[in-house]
Amino acid sequence: MTDTSQTTPPAPDAAEIDAALLADMSDAVEERDVRWLARTLQRMHPADAADALEQLPYDTFEEAVELLGGELPPDILIELRDSYREGAVDVLPDHAVVNALDELDSDDATTILDDLEDDRRERILEDLAPIDRAQLERGLSYDEETAGRLMQTEFVALPEFWTVGHSIDHARKLGTELPEVFYEVYVTDPAHRLIGVVSLATLLRTHREAQLSDIMEDPMSNITTDMDQEEVAYQFQKYSLASAPVKDAAGRLVGMITVDDMVDVIQSENTEDLLSLLNVSSADGSDSVWDTVKARAPWLAVNLFTAFIASAIISIFEGTIEQLVALAVLMPVVAALGGNAGSQGLAVAVRAIAERELDGPAARRAVLREFLSGTVNGVIFAIGVGIIAFLWFHQVKLALVIAVSMLATFMWAGLSGILVPLSLKRLGADPAVASSVFVLTLTDVMAFFSFLGLATLVLL
Amino acid sequence: MTDTSQTTPPAPDAAEIDAALLADMSDAVEERDVRWLARTLQRMHPADAADALEQLPYDTFEEAVELLGGELPPDILIELRDSYREGAVDVLPDHAVVNALDELDSDDATTILDDLEDDRRERILEDLAPIDRAQLERGLSYDEETAGRLMQTEFVALPEFWTVGHSIDHARKLGTELPEVFYEVYVTDPAHRLIGVVSLATLLRTHREAQLSDIMEDPMSNITTDMDQEEVAYQFQKYSLASAPVKDAAGRLVGMITVDDMVDVIQSENTEDLLSLLNVSSADGSDSVWDTVKARAPWLAVNLFTAFIASAIISIFEGTIEQLVALAVLMPVVAALGGNAGSQGLAVAVRAIAERELDGPAARRAVLREFLSGTVNGVIFAIGVGIIAFLWFHQVKLALVIAVSMLATFMWAGLSGILVPLSLKRLGADPAVASSVFVLTLTDVMAFFSFLGLATLVLL
Repeated sequence: MTDTSQTTPPAPDAAEIDAALLADMSDAVEERDVRWLARTLQRMHPADAADALEQLPYDTFEEAVELLGGELPPDILIELRDSYREGAVDVLPDHAVVNALDELDSDDATTILDDLEDDRRERILEDLAPIDRAQLERGLSYDEETAGRLMQTEFVALPEFWTVGHSIDHARKLGTELPEVFYEVYVTDPAHRLIGVVSLATLLRTHREAQLSDIMEDPMSNITTDMDQEEVAYQFQKYSLASAPVKDAAGRLVGMITVDDMVDVIQSENTEDLLSLLNVSSADGSDSVWDTVKARAPWLAVNLFTAFIASAIISIFEGTIEQLVALAVLMPVVAALGGNAGSQGLAVAVRAIAERELDGPAARRAVLREFLSGTVNGVIFAIGVGIIAFLWFHQVKLALVIAVSMLATFMWAGLSGILVPLSLKRLGADPAVASSVFVLTLTDVMAFFSFLGLATLVLL
Repeated sequence: MTDTSQTTPPAPDAAEIDAALLADMSDAVEERDVRWLARTLQRMHPADAADALEQLPYDTFEEAVELLGGELPPDILIELRDSYREGAVDVLPDHAVVNALDELDSDDATTILDDLEDDRRERILEDLAPIDRAQLERGLSYDEETAGRLMQTEFVALPEFWTVGHSIDHARKLGTELPEVFYEVYVTDPAHRLIGVVSLATLLRTHREAQLSDIMEDPMSNITTDMDQEEVAYQFQKYSLASAPVKDAAGRLVGMITVDDMVDVIQSENTEDLLSLLNVSSADGSDSVWDTVKARAPWLAVNLFTAFIASAIISIFEGTIEQLVALAVLMPVVAALGGNAGSQGLAVAVRAIAERELDGPAARRAVLREFLSGTVNGVIFAIGVGIIAFLWFHQVKLALVIAVSMLATFMWAGLSGILVPLSLKRLGADPAVASSVFVLTLTDVMAFFSFLGLATLVLL
C-alpha cells in the first residue's frame, strides 16, 4: 500500500475524487489498514475527505468509520452529510464521540449531540468537563433552526477602553486558544452587553494607540438567540456579513454566527421551497426507497383527492361528452395550459416572497400584474388553441368554446398563482407548501367547468 | 421637514421600512428637498436606503435619483436590485456615474459599466484616469458569470519573506488605502504567483517575528478568471470560505472574490432552478406585464404543442370513450397523479444534481431507487384509485384497468423523473430547463395510452 499513498494529498484542483483513491480506500478497509486510512484522510481537506468517504459503498463507509474509531478526525465527521454523519456517530465508540465534542466548535458539537439517542447522550455528557457540559446543554436548549442553535460560543470580546495594541498583544498571548476562524472582534461593556464591532481589517490598519471605542462600528445585524434562521440568513445577505454577534434577551453577547453556516441555511431553505412546490416533503441523496415513498405518498394522496374533484366536475357533463366526444379529446389541453400558467405565477410569487419583494404596496402591484399578464397570455393562447381546434374538428362553435374557456382559465390561473401563496403567507403558513396542489385544483376546476359548461350551453 | 429627520437613522432592528419614512421621502421628492433626502439616505445603511428607495412608486424613485444626482451615494446605487440600478444609472448625469466608478470596488464598478449603453460607456471611460480605465476594461473583457467578472482587483498581496510585524506596520501605513473589507492576505512570489494565504486571525495571533512563509497555508480553493460562477460558489460552500484569491491562466494573482457575492450567486442559481422547473425563464419583482408575458409565453407554447400530443393519443380512442364515457371522467386522474409523481422525482433529482450528489455510482443507485419507489407508490395508489373507481362505477373490470394503468404510469414516471434530468446533464444542458415539460409529456402519454388502450382491450 505504501506506493499508493503517494497519490495523496490530492492536488488542490482534484475536486473529483478519483476512482483509484476510492479503490485504495476500499482495499485498506478490507485489509483493516487503519494507519494508512487515517493518514490518507488526515492529509486531505476535511471536506474532500468527507466526500471520498461518502462515495464508498455505504457498508464500506460504516466499516471504515468503525475501524478508525478515535482516529477519525472530528473535522471530517462534521463535514459529512446529515445521514452519513448520523450513521458514523452510531458506530463510533463513546470515547471517540467525547473527543469530537471536545475538539469541535460548540455549534458543531451541538449538531453531534443532537444525533445521539437520549440515554447515550446522557452518558456522554457525563464524561465531559462540567463547564463544557453546561455550555453544550445550553446549546441544545435553543429551538432548532434558531440563531441559538447555529451560533458558536467561541468568539473574541474585548472591553471598549482597550487599545488596538493591547488587543493585538492579547491575541498573540492567547494564540491557538482563540477561535480558529473569526473575522471581527466584539466590544462589550462590563455587563457583557454588545456595544460595537471591530473588523480584523480595521484592527490591522489602525495605529496601536487607538482605543476600540474610537474605531468600533454599530453592529449592522441585530440577531437574538431565538431568531429564526431564515431571518438570520436574510440579515447576512442584506448586509453582506461574514460573521455576526448573537445576543440573548437581555442584550448580552452570547455567541457568533459565521457565514458558512448561513450559506448552508440559504441553500437548504431554497431546496425546501423547490421541493415543496413540487410536492416533496424532504429529500436526501442517501434516502432509502422507503424514505422516498414516505416523503411523497402523502402529497400524492392529497392529489388523489383533488383529482377526483376534477373527475366529479367532468362527470356532471357526461351527457355532453357522450354527444360530442371531441370534448374529451380537447379538455386536457385547457387543464394542462391553465395549470402551467398557474404554476408559473406561483413560482415567481414564492421566490418574490422569499426574497421579501412582496411586502406592502408591492403585493398589490404584483396581483394586478399577474392578472393582466394572465389575461394577455390568455388572449394569445385562446387564439392559438381556437385555431388548432378549428383546423382539427372544423367546428367554429367548438373553437370558440375552447378559446373562451382558455381565456377564463388563464385569468383565473393568474389570480390563483399569486393569491394562494400570499394568503398562505398571511395565515402564517409557508407559501411554498401545499400551494401548488391548491393552484392546480383551482385551475383544473375552472378549466373543466368552463369548457364543458360552455360546451353544454352552446353546442347542444 | 426638520422634525421628521429625527426619525432617521432608523433603529438597527427596523428591518421593515416604516410608512412614515416613505411618506416623508415622497414629500421631499415633491418639494425637491435634496439636502434632506441626501442626509436621510446617508444616515441609513446602504442596503436599508436601497430598500426604502425601491419601495417608492417607480416614478418617484426615478425622480429621487434624478434630484440627487451626484449626491446619491454609490454604495446605495450598488445595493439596488438590477432593474432599479439600471433605471437609476439611466437618469444619473455622467459626472455622477464617473464618481461612482471611482469610488466603488472594481467588481461593483464593472456592474455599473455593464449597465451603460455602448456609446455612453465609451464617453464615461474616457473621463476616468487611464489606470482605472484599463482595469475596468479588463474586468469587462471577462465573460459574464465567470470568476473574472465577480472578482475585485483590490486585495492585499505580500512577499513571503516579510514578517508579521512588518506586514502589520505596512497595513497601518496604508490605512484607508487598503480595501475596506478583506479577511485574508495573499502571499505571492516575485512573479506575482500566488503561493499562500494568511488569514487575518492568524496574522493577529502570531508573534511579530514570524515570517509569512512560516504561517501561510495552501489556498483551499483553486479559482481562475475563466471559472464558471457556479463552480466558484461550490468551492466557497465546500471549503466554508469567506474570500478566495483568483488567478489568471499563468497562475498570477489577479483578484479576490468575497463570500457576499457568492451568496448572491447561490441564491440566483437556486432561483433559476426553481423557475426553470416551473417553466418561467426569468423573473424580477419589478417586471412589467410585458416582461412577464415574454418570460412565460414561450414555455406555454411548448406546452400547447405537448398538450395536443396528449389530445392526439386520446383521439385514437374516441370510439372507446363514446361507448364508455366514464373513461373520460377518470382519465385525468391517471394523468394528474402520474404527472405529480414524475415532478416529485424530477425536483429531487435536479436538487441532487445541483448539489453534486449524483456523480458516478450514486446516479445508478438513484435511478434504481426512483424506479422502486415509483413502483411502491404505484401499487399503493393503484389499489386506492381502483377501490374509488369501483365504488363509483361498480365495474370490476374498469377498476382493474385504471389500477393497472396507474401502476404502469407510476413506474414510468419514476424513471422519467430521474432519467430526463440526468440525460440533459449528460448532454451538457441545464437539467432544470425544459425537463418538467418532457417529464409531464412522457407521463401524460403513458397515462392516456395505457388507460384508454387497456380499456379498449378489456372493456369492449
